[in-house]
Amino acid sequence: MSQIDYFTEANSVEAVNARMGEETDPRLREVMASLIRHLHGFVKDVGLTQAEWEAAIDFLTRTGQMCDDKRQEFILLSDTLGVSMLVDAIQHRRPAGATENTVFGPFHVDGAPELSMGASISLDGKGEACRYQGRVLGLEGNPIEGARIDVWSDNSDGFYDVQQPNQQPEWNNRGVFITGADGRYDFIGIKPVPYPIPDDGPVGQMLASLGRHPWRPAHMHFLLEHPDYERIVTHTFVAGDDYLPSDAVFGVKDSLVVDYRESTDESATWEANFDFIMVKK
Amino acid sequence: MSQIDYFTEANSVEAVNARMGEETDPRLREVMASLIRHLHGFVKDVGLTQAEWEAAIDFLTRTGQMCDDKRQEFILLSDTLGVSMLVDAIQHRRPAGATENTVFGPFHVDGAPELSMGASISLDGKGEACRYQGRVLGLEGNPIEGARIDVWSDNSDGFYDVQQPNQQPEWNNRGVFITGADGRYDFIGIKPVPYPIPDDGPVGQMLASLGRHPWRPAHMHFLLEHPDYERIVTHTFVAGDDYLPSDAVFGVKDSLVVDYRESTDESATWEANFDFIMVKK
Ligand SMILES: [Fe+2]
Ligand SMILES: [Fe+2]
Repeated sequence: MSQIDYFTEANSVEAVNARMGEETDPRLREVMASLIRHLHGFVKDVGLTQAEWEAAIDFLTRTGQMCDDKRQEFILLSDTLGVSMLVDAIQHRRPAGATENTVFGPFHVDGAPELSMGASISLDGKGEACRYQGRVLGLEGNPIEGARIDVWSDNSDGFYDVQQPNQQPEWNNRGVFITGADGRYDFIGIKPVPYPIPDDGPVGQMLASLGRHPWRPAHMHFLLEHPDYERIVTHTFVAGDDYLPSDAVFGVKDSLVVDYRESTDESATWEANFDFIMVKK
Repeated sequence: MSQIDYFTEANSVEAVNARMGEETDPRLREVMASLIRHLHGFVKDVGLTQAEWEAAIDFLTRTGQMCDDKRQEFILLSDTLGVSMLVDAIQHRRPAGATENTVFGPFHVDGAPELSMGASISLDGKGEACRYQGRVLGLEGNPIEGARIDVWSDNSDGFYDVQQPNQQPEWNNRGVFITGADGRYDFIGIKPVPYPIPDDGPVGQMLASLGRHPWRPAHMHFLLEHPDYERIVTHTFVAGDDYLPSDAVFGVKDSLVVDYRESTDESATWEANFDFIMVKK
C-alpha cells in the first residue's frame, strides 16, 4: 500500500474536503465542506446509478441553457424545491407579531410611479377592483411615518405588465406609496388571480414527473422599506384560493392570508385590510 | 390558525416531499426525497445567506451556459467535487483482486482501429515510447481469450487527438487489441504526461477559489470488454507522478499505479506491465 490516502467510497467526503487550500476563505471552506458532505451523502443514500447521474447532468445542463435575461430557470428550480423560501426563512427570523417575509419573485420592477394615497394602480380597467387599506406599525403598535410601500400584482389574465410589454399600459398594477404620520396606506388595485410559473422548461418537466402543478395562489406583492426598520418582502394572499395549500413555490404563510370582503363603499368591489408590522433595525 | 400545514423552516423537507403525487415513479420518489433532505440540510447547516444563494444561482447558470457539444462543464463540476468517482465506486464494488474502475473521462472516441499485438499507437513519433504488456485474466488466474482492449492517451504535449483535430494524425495514441488464447496484450504507446482539465470556465474559477489546481497525473486509458465478463473502465497511472496525490478529479487508486521501468529491449524507452483481472457477469 502507498502512503497516499486516495479517494475511496468510504473516505470520499474527507478526500475532497482535504484538497481545499489553507488560504481558502473560511466561510467558503465551511459552505463547501457542508455541500460535499450532503452531496456525497445523497449519492450514497440512494446508491445513485450511472444512468441517474447522466440524467442529472443533462437536467442541470438544460436548466442552465434555458436561462437568459428574461428567464431564470435555476431560480425556478430553487423556488419549486423549497430552497428559496428556506433561505428566506433562515435569514428573516422575526419576533412574534412582525410581518413575515415570502419570496420576492421575478416580476418586481424598480421605478414604479409614486402615487397619492387613495389612487388606483389598475390602469387597464380590467379585473375586479379592490381597495387595499391598513397601517404600517412598529412592534409596539406605533404608526410608522415615511414607510415606502412598493406594490405589484398580475392583471386579471394572470400576467404581470412586464410579461405583456405591448398589451398593458406602462406600470399597470404597480405603484409606490409613502405613509404619513398616521402610518396609513390606501390604494385601489384588483383582486389578483392565480397564475402558473413558466412550465415550458426543465423545471416544468420535473414538476410534471412529480405529479405537481405549476400554479401560484392569487397574491399582491409588497415591498416595505424605511430607514429605521428592516425591509419586508412579502405578499398577501386571497383567502379561499384553491392553490393556497399547494403553491408551486411554497410561499404561503398563515399570517399572510387576507379575507377579501365585499366593499362597503362604491370605490371598489372588494376590500382587503392588512396591517404591516415592521421590526427596528 | 388554519388547518393547512404551510411550509416553515422547521417542516421544510416534509412540506416539499409531501407534494409528490401518488403516481410518482417509486425510484424517482426515493431519489427526490433524499435530494430534498440533503439540500435543505445543507442550507440549514450553513445558514446560507441571500447573497450566497445568489452566487450559487449565478454559478450554476454560468456552468450550464458553458456547455456545448464540445464542453460539458457540469461533468467537470461533478468530477472535481468527487461525485463522478463516488457514483462509479458505488456501482462497481468488485471482489478483492479484480481490477478497479476509474473515471471514463471525456476523450474516448468510438471506432479506433483494431491493431495486431505488438503494434504502435504512437503515430506522430513524439514522446517517450513505452511498451505496454500484460495479461487479461479471470479471478482464478485463467487467461481470457477474446477480450477487447480499447486504449487511449494524451500526446507528449498533454492533448488528446480530438483536442487538436488538425495537428495530429487520425487516431494518434488510440487503438483496439483483442486477446488470443494466452490472454496477453502487447503494444507500443508513449509514456503519458500530466494535463490540466479545462479551467477557463466556472469550474476553473471554483478550483482557484479553493486553492486547487486543475491537473491530472499522467495516465493511459483502458476500456476492457468481453461478452462473459463485466466491463472495466479504468486508467493506469505513472508511478512517481507529482500529481498522484492531488488528481483534480480524484481518479487515482493504489492498485492502478504502475512502475514505468527502463525497457530491456530496443522497441521502446520504457515498459509498463499490468495484468487486468475481470469479473464474470
Ligand atoms: Fe407574483
Ligand atoms: Fe485522460
